[in-house]
Amino acid sequence: MARRKKVYEGKAKILYEGPEPGTLIQYFKDDSAPTVAAPATLEGKGVLNNRLSEFFMTGLNQIGVPTHFIRRINMREQLVRMAEIIPLEVVVRNFSAGPMTARLGIPEGTQLPRPIVEYYYKDERLNAPLVAEEHIVAFGWANQQDLDDIIALALRVNDFLSGVMMGVGIRLADFKIEVGRVWDGDYMRLIVADEISPDSCRLWDMRLPERPDGTLPDPQPMTDVYSELARRLGVMPSNVTHTTKPTLIN
Amino acid sequence: MARRKKVYEGKAKILYEGPEPGTLIQYFKDDSAPTVAAPATLEGKGVLNNRLSEFFMTGLNQIGVPTHFIRRINMREQLVRMAEIIPLEVVVRNFSAGPMTARLGIPEGTQLPRPIVEYYYKDERLNAPLVAEEHIVAFGWANQQDLDDIIALALRVNDFLSGVMMGVGIRLADFKIEVGRVWDGDYMRLIVADEISPDSCRLWDMRLPERPDGTLPDPQPMTDVYSELARRLGVMPSNVTHTTKPTLIN
Repeated sequence: MARRKKVYEGKAKILYEGPEPGTLIQYFKDDSAPTVAAPATLEGKGVLNNRLSEFFMTGLNQIGVPTHFIRRINMREQLVRMAEIIPLEVVVRNFSAGPMTARLGIPEGTQLPRPIVEYYYKDERLNAPLVAEEHIVAFGWANQQDLDDIIALALRVNDFLSGVMMGVGIRLADFKIEVGRVWDGDYMRLIVADEISPDSCRLWDMRLPERPDGTLPDPQPMTDVYSELARRLGVMPSNVTHTTKPTLIN
Repeated sequence: MARRKKVYEGKAKILYEGPEPGTLIQYFKDDSAPTVAAPATLEGKGVLNNRLSEFFMTGLNQIGVPTHFIRRINMREQLVRMAEIIPLEVVVRNFSAGPMTARLGIPEGTQLPRPIVEYYYKDERLNAPLVAEEHIVAFGWANQQDLDDIIALALRVNDFLSGVMMGVGIRLADFKIEVGRVWDGDYMRLIVADEISPDSCRLWDMRLPERPDGTLPDPQPMTDVYSELARRLGVMPSNVTHTTKPTLIN
């Protein structure tokens, strides 16, 4: 195989030029960004995130939420559509946790009155600071129409992803997406880019053993989240995905 | 217990006066309407549908889609908010099946270009005929603002429910909801009413054994759909729901 041209390398992923114009190959590493609550390197994580992101993006494409995902190529790589990434981390929060708890003093685990969409300026050197729509429009990172579309997109992803997680006994406390612009002829539209995986979602387990007094504990951060999520969704790096016998996927 | 006043009895459910003004008790029977692809009576169906509808309505309430569901009372009953039901069956179709295949000749299983919302006039004697927005507004069953709100509600339910089903290896081909009006003081809003269960959803199994040649068959209507769906979602009429050991819920 000819040596491919590297377009970008981040902590968790590498982007290579794709086989056709307007495409990229997204390679999933086992490393995590320091902001992710995971070991710096976790063997096999990239393989699972490649599968999980395929699962979520395929589902979004199917319900009509456009994403950059085209198809999975192999264990670690997927073909995606090249997009002009808007330099924002778009976060949707259903429950208070992490930075919201720290900043606003809302106890961890509190259900928010409605899903809240936040924007963080995507600049690692600045540690991705929270920004308001006012900053985004003033600095030209996106215009007001983009922001309205981003909110609609983010809330649809939230409805879908909350459903997927609830179906397998998991609470989606919050998650992050990135959004990019693509052009179909003269027509510009926004699509979900990057990845959707445990690296971008805060997941709390609702299938916990009862306490001795018969009550249920509050949902807890998931242990072994990459493989446990893949197991529950039947998304495993082999064909056993498609069996009707759940015992085989344990 | 004092004898309760029956407010309505349909094929699959009975509504009784609730303990407080503005509430009703919804009782799930084992019988099905003749339009549902199920035996006329299926022992235990009502118990499962009570649990399943609780599961879906609770999830919708949590993501901010308002429903009539307040809480489950016992095996067969749930407390719901009284609503003025709009006399429409609101159907969302993701794949062609049933009446769409029959009417428009689109082969069963064809993915639609986008989710399509249809309305059927809720009148059993007429066999719930398809109607257009024009009929609905002209006959005063709902106004244009209601219809815009109903579409938004129906599409959010579709995003969520498609996610739940996809998480457990099921394709949501189509489903039906009913929508009702409630008043909070002077403020009217629309909520999802009735039930969400296999009686109102067309579900196709994606976890099928491979063919001998290694390819996967097309999704098939689910067999034993009530108990199989409850099993996959961990929604069982006992406490084993909350275990971390999936073997216990088989």
